[in-house]
Amino acid sequence: MSRQCKVLLNDDEMPRQWYNIQADLPHPLPPPVDKEGKPIGPQALAPVFPMNLIEQEVSTQRWIDIPEAVIEKLLLYRPSPLCRAYAFEKALKTPAKIYYKNEGVSPAGSHKPNTAIAQAYYNKEFGIKRLTTETGAGQWGSALAMACKLFGLACKVYMVRISFEQKPFRKMMMNTWGAECIASPSNQTNAGRAILAKTPDTPGSLAMAISEAIEDAVTSKDTRYSLGSVLNHVLLHQTIIGLEAQKQFQKIGAYPDVVIGCVGGGSNFAGISFPFICDKIHGKKVRIMAVEPAACPTLTRGPFVYDSGDVAMMTPLLAMHSLGHTFVPRPIHAGGLRYHGMAPLVSHVMREGLMEACAINQLECYRSAVMWAHTEGFIPAPETSHAIAAAAQEAIRAREEGKETTILLNWSGHGLMDLTGYEKFLTGKMVDATLSEDDLGKSLQSLAGLPQPPEL
Amino acid sequence: MSRQCKVLLNDDEMPRQWYNIQADLPHPLPPPVDKEGKPIGPQALAPVFPMNLIEQEVSTQRWIDIPEAVIEKLLLYRPSPLCRAYAFEKALKTPAKIYYKNEGVSPAGSHKPNTAIAQAYYNKEFGIKRLTTETGAGQWGSALAMACKLFGLACKVYMVRISFEQKPFRKMMMNTWGAECIASPSNQTNAGRAILAKTPDTPGSLAMAISEAIEDAVTSKDTRYSLGSVLNHVLLHQTIIGLEAQKQFQKIGAYPDVVIGCVGGGSNFAGISFPFICDKIHGKKVRIMAVEPAACPTLTRGPFVYDSGDVAMMTPLLAMHSLGHTFVPRPIHAGGLRYHGMAPLVSHVMREGLMEACAINQLECYRSAVMWAHTEGFIPAPETSHAIAAAAQEAIRAREEGKETTILLNWSGHGLMDLTGYEKFLTGKMVDATLSEDDLGKSLQSLAGLPQPPEL
Repeated sequence: MSRQCKVLLNDDEMPRQWYNIQADLPHPLPPPVDKEGKPIGPQALAPVFPMNLIEQEVSTQRWIDIPEAVIEKLLLYRPSPLCRAYAFEKALKTPAKIYYKNEGVSPAGSHKPNTAIAQAYYNKEFGIKRLTTETGAGQWGSALAMACKLFGLACKVYMVRISFEQKPFRKMMMNTWGAECIASPSNQTNAGRAILAKTPDTPGSLAMAISEAIEDAVTSKDTRYSLGSVLNHVLLHQTIIGLEAQKQFQKIGAYPDVVIGCVGGGSNFAGISFPFICDKIHGKKVRIMAVEPAACPTLTRGPFVYDSGDVAMMTPLLAMHSLGHTFVPRPIHAGGLRYHGMAPLVSHVMREGLMEACAINQLECYRSAVMWAHTEGFIPAPETSHAIAAAAQEAIRAREEGKETTILLNWSGHGLMDLTGYEKFLTGKMVDATLSEDDLGKSLQSLAGLPQPPEL
Repeated sequence: MSRQCKVLLNDDEMPRQWYNIQADLPHPLPPPVDKEGKPIGPQALAPVFPMNLIEQEVSTQRWIDIPEAVIEKLLLYRPSPLCRAYAFEKALKTPAKIYYKNEGVSPAGSHKPNTAIAQAYYNKEFGIKRLTTETGAGQWGSALAMACKLFGLACKVYMVRISFEQKPFRKMMMNTWGAECIASPSNQTNAGRAILAKTPDTPGSLAMAISEAIEDAVTSKDTRYSLGSVLNHVLLHQTIIGLEAQKQFQKIGAYPDVVIGCVGGGSNFAGISFPFICDKIHGKKVRIMAVEPAACPTLTRGPFVYDSGDVAMMTPLLAMHSLGHTFVPRPIHAGGLRYHGMAPLVSHVMREGLMEACAINQLECYRSAVMWAHTEGFIPAPETSHAIAAAAQEAIRAREEGKETTILLNWSGHGLMDLTGYEKFLTGKMVDATLSEDDLGKSLQSLAGLPQPPEL
């Protein structure tokens, strides 16, 4: 008998409920507020999101049923396998056991369809005909393009310019699923035109693209906006990852010592970690680690503040770690992690002391990613490489300490659409882009005059 | 309970033996011969392939054990799921049940690693340090690049020029796995230089690239050549697909009425169909269908002859359906199906009346592929779209006849590296490229003077 490499779940073992961490938080989440610090009610979000998703956003119910129509579409690719990275372990000469949840098996190649499918469904149910969104690396845009097609909705994607140019095939992918995709900032919205007038050569940012997509949604007929990360309901939909992983560990009688995910807006990290944080709140010993790029170190260097989710300040203010909504990260290849803010739920869990965070430079991430491809075969997305690099650090520590640490990492997506980054790395043309104190200071000025979140 | 979409096998259910159809053929396979028609002995192949693979090539043993080291690497991504295409069925309004074996789950995105891993292993065992190969669409080249890296071999890939230019990311993929990839015909071999002197603007062909790769192998130290299709041992390694599918159908108490695969050299088709043809030889009722591009209709319009596998006639003559070794197919997007010949085993099985074949134009294939992406989510490779189009034809016939036909198709790979074809199709810039009688006639002239294979 060969060793077991993969732990599978059958269709009927896929979780039928999402886990809502709001039911278990030691302190309640600070509410979204307006610029005067006054809490925003659900009604204020109605032009942007359908009411059924707004209800989910504010729900504190622990378990939320996954609708049957959503289950049907998730079953196209889920449950995802839990795999043991034996060959990567061997290359690191570590006694640690490294497990990874392979979210690259979805049609779009990442975890993003988990919420795209749910959001398309709820919008459809609410009578919406068209969704707009932003995308960084293109993982989210293509996931929503697919989900909209599966439910018969139209879709328009504003893609951060630097990624739009680096990754031309992402646009073709969205087009294949029937969506329209344009570079942001564009001249098709007031927000885009205003940015282009000031900074015509900007590489773009998620914050800019969000402004454009929201403006489009609130000014178009039967249209709503869809966000691929940050918000509570998005993180909720992703918890199916961690819930599956728990079932899979149960099957082999194991449990992770540390759970690792990369963070941009926070959705894949929350997806794998929140069910384990629930265990932790209820007494289980487990470390939870978020990994961000040194070029965009929101959790490790950004203050916990009230800030806007977009550059034009169209969103309510959210209590979160932020580098300031005017922050434009250097053009690193992990486009999906280039966001100034952090999911309020992730930020809050960090404040509660239930998790830790670290920042890693992209050269170290690519070194780990190439080692992964050379041992495990699968080529990781640049975002995922951050989780792999942190897992490698943990595994090396385990070797030094002689411990058989069990590591779980969220392998959030494959890198087949992101090969230009690998080419740059392999030909020695990649550089690190650590955020300077100076740039951070300038960007934090955009927080001046905004209300402060309450102490814990 | 939701309906079951996927039938899974656990790691310990993956087959531990390959199936060798040579043990069950009603008539023996005609041997490879030289230009005088004299059978070629194993020793003549020794400069090209390692002896352990040559032994497999000529073996008539029914079951061949898969080495433990190969199993270990196959388990990185296998067993692959057997999925039911409910949404595609619904779009076709058919009572047919369409199952697909998803070979797109491998790190390289296709079935090709199934044999690449085995070949890299056997070469390594034989003391070989470096492999050369050709690739059309890039599916094979990237699979061998990965397999070589997993076993620590060097790898050089000669990629058909038209695909090299259409699919720049394939080269980056191979580079990421540590292989070298150049466009063929190149000026690095005598064969390449001779072709370029005559036809400097040629789009290239698999037959040309094979000539270059073989020349490189036989003239370099510790180097052998590796072929991604056509040969008996390659098809043998792919039978794991059909063997898994049989186990999966057994689990749900079903059996296909028709098994469908696209054919270029024949490996994915043989992989899924040979275990079912074994059943058929032993009395089971099942239709077996190969689907080829109308631009390269080897089985449906090429005669059964002795022909060379490459344009420079470096290979022995193989008894097979062929369009002539000088045939240069029009540049359709299914680069992996642009081969003048057909696996001798597939050609022989066709002669035995155990299977049927059809040819489909690329526009119809892309229409089916887009319908697939819009319903099942996954974007198929252009090659795979041929199997999908044929399955759709069968499903429509089932609707017209009111039959609940069970269809199994080999979903040989995803199309995420082949999106330029989709762009061309979606923007109305794609044309069909049916082979003309005139072009066929010219190409068949290259068969003049070659020996004839014996009657059945």
